[in-house]
Amino acid sequence: MALLQDIIGGEPARQRRAMAKTITLLESTRADHRLHADALLNALLPATGDSFRLGISGVPGVGKSTFIEALGLHLISLGHRVAVLAVDPSSSVSGGSILGDKTRMEQLSVHPQAYIRPSPSSGTLGGVAERTREAMLVCEAAGYDVVIVETVGVGQSETAVQGMTDMFCLLQLPNAGDDLQAIKKGVMELADLVVINKADLDENAATRARAQISSALRLFGMHGHPDHLHHDQSVWHPTVIQMSALKNQGVDAFWATVSQFRDLQSSSGRMAARRRSQDEAWMWERIDAGLKARFKAHPAVREQIGPVADDVRNGVVAASVAARRLLDLFH
Amino acid sequence: MALLQDIIGGEPARQRRAMAKTITLLESTRADHRLHADALLNALLPATGDSFRLGISGVPGVGKSTFIEALGLHLISLGHRVAVLAVDPSSSVSGGSILGDKTRMEQLSVHPQAYIRPSPSSGTLGGVAERTREAMLVCEAAGYDVVIVETVGVGQSETAVQGMTDMFCLLQLPNAGDDLQAIKKGVMELADLVVINKADLDENAATRARAQISSALRLFGMHGHPDHLHHDQSVWHPTVIQMSALKNQGVDAFWATVSQFRDLQSSSGRMAARRRSQDEAWMWERIDAGLKARFKAHPAVREQIGPVADDVRNGVVAASVAARRLLDLFH
Repeated sequence: MALLQDIIGGEPARQRRAMAKTITLLESTRADHRLHADALLNALLPATGDSFRLGISGVPGVGKSTFIEALGLHLISLGHRVAVLAVDPSSSVSGGSILGDKTRMEQLSVHPQAYIRPSPSSGTLGGVAERTREAMLVCEAAGYDVVIVETVGVGQSETAVQGMTDMFCLLQLPNAGDDLQAIKKGVMELADLVVINKADLDENAATRARAQISSALRLFGMHGHPDHLHHDQSVWHPTVIQMSALKNQGVDAFWATVSQFRDLQSSSGRMAARRRSQDEAWMWERIDAGLKARFKAHPAVREQIGPVADDVRNGVVAASVAARRLLDLFH
Repeated sequence: MALLQDIIGGEPARQRRAMAKTITLLESTRADHRLHADALLNALLPATGDSFRLGISGVPGVGKSTFIEALGLHLISLGHRVAVLAVDPSSSVSGGSILGDKTRMEQLSVHPQAYIRPSPSSGTLGGVAERTREAMLVCEAAGYDVVIVETVGVGQSETAVQGMTDMFCLLQLPNAGDDLQAIKKGVMELADLVVINKADLDENAATRARAQISSALRLFGMHGHPDHLHHDQSVWHPTVIQMSALKNQGVDAFWATVSQFRDLQSSSGRMAARRRSQDEAWMWERIDAGLKARFKAHPAVREQIGPVADDVRNGVVAASVAARRLLDLFH
C-alpha cells in the first residue's frame, strides 16, 4: 500500500501524484482495478471525515468559478487546505467539465495548498456522484480540511451534491425568475444557505430577491420543521446573504456564516447524523443501480426486454404483468 | 373466464360483482391469485383504453369529495359512465381511505352509472398505485368512459397519479401559502389544470391566487417547453380556473376545459404518446421495486445487511464498497 502511505504522509509532490493515481484507479471500470480501489478505500477510511464538506450549486453564469477562486484563496490565507471537486454528468456529453478549464481558477489551481479535480466525465449521475464521493475521501485522507463540491445547478445533480456534503449553498443572481426556477426544481429547499452573488450589479434587485427568498425559505422551514416555530436558537434557519465574489466583497462574511452553521451542526450532533444517513442512502442508491445493471445484463432478460417492452407500448401486455414476467426470467 | 365475460358484457348487477371480485383478486398477494389476475388483466387489455383518465389532487379540506360528486353527476347527465378510484397509501396507516366514507359522495356512490372504489389500503405507494392502475383497466373494460383517480395531495402520490392519467388537475384553495407549498413540492409543475375551488369564499383572494398561479405556470412552461414561446395554438398551456363545487358553480366550465384539453391531446397524438411512456415507466418502476424486494429477501443478503449497514454507519466500510459487497452476495 505505497499509495496509501503517500496519500496520508507523503511529501507534497508525491502526495499529489498518489492522489491523482488513486482517483484514476477509482474511476476505472476494470474489475481488478475496482478490487484494488475498494481495498484502498477501506484502508483510507479511518483517515477521512475530518474535513468540512461544502456543496456549491448555481446556474451557469452565476459566477461559481470566481466565487470558488475567491473563497479558496481566503481559506488558504486562514491556514486551510482546500480541495475542489465537481459533479457534472453533462461533461460526458460536452467532453469537458465545468472544472476542466482550470484557467477559470487561475491562482487557486496552481496553489500548493489547493487540489482541484474536474468532474468524472463518464457514466450516469449516480456513477459520477459515486466517483466524486470517493475522491472526496481521498482528499480528506490527504489532509484537505475543506472539500468544496461544485455542481452546475441544472438538474438532479444538486440532490446528489446535497447528499454528500455537510452544507449545501445555492448561488443565485439578483433576479426573481431565477428564484422561481430554483423553487420549482426543489433546489431552494435543499439549501442551507442562499448566496445572492453579483449583488453589486443591481442592488435594488438584490435586496428584493433577498426578501423574496427569505420568505420562501421561512415558509419551507415552517412546514418542514416544526422546530422552527419554537425559536430554538440551536437550530439553523436557512439564510440569505448578498456578496460580490468578483469584487471580493462578502467572502469573509460568507465564511463566517458557514462557520456558524458548522459549529451549530457539530455541537448538536446533526453533522454526524447527516453523514450517517447520507452514507446509508448512498449505499442503497448504489445497490439499486447495481441491481438494475445486473438485471439488464442478464442473458434471458436482454433477449426478452425488447419484445416485452414493445408489447407494453402496443397495449398487448399490461405493464405490471410485463414487469413480473421479466423479473421471473431474472431468477 | 366467466369473470371476463361478466365484466365486458354482464348485466349491471353481475358486472358490478365481477368488477369487485376481479379488483379484490388483483389486490391479493397469494401467488395463485396473482397468476389468475395476470391472465385476466392480459385478456381484458384489448377492451381497455377508451376512457378518459382524469387525475384529481388537492390537500385535505380543499373539497375534493364535493367536487367529484358534482362533476360525476354532471358527467352522468351528459351520458357518461364514471368510475372513481383513489391512491392513498396513508390509508394503510389510518385504516381508512379518503373514499372509504362513501357518504361523502351521497348521490354519486349509489348511482347505477357510477362505480366508486376506495384506495387499496396496504403496501407501499408503488404497490398501491399498481393496484389502482390495474383497477382502472377493469373499469375501462366494463365500459366506464371517464375514470377519475383521486389522491390526497400530501406527498409523492401526486406523481403516481399524474403518471397514470391523461390529465392531472390540482385543486387549490384561494390562499397564497397553499400555492407556494404546491410549487415547493413540485406538484404545480405536474398540473395540466389548476382549479381554485371555494372561490366564492373570498373572491379577491381567488383572483389574486389565479394571477399568481398563472404567472408561475407560464414561467414553468417557458423554461420547460420551448414550444410555448412560439404561441403554437395546438399546444396546451396549463390553465387556472375558478369554481365553487359546493354551489355547483363552474362544473360545466371545468368539463369544457377538460374536453378542450382532451381534444387537443388526442388529435395531436400526445395522449397516445403520454400513455405509452406512462406504461413503459410503470414497467420499470415495478421492475425496480421487484428487484429490491428480491434482493432484501435473499438469504445471504438478509444475513449480512444488518452488520454491513452498521459498518457503514460506524465509518468502518465505505458505502460504495458495502453496496458492492452486498450485491456480490446476491449473485
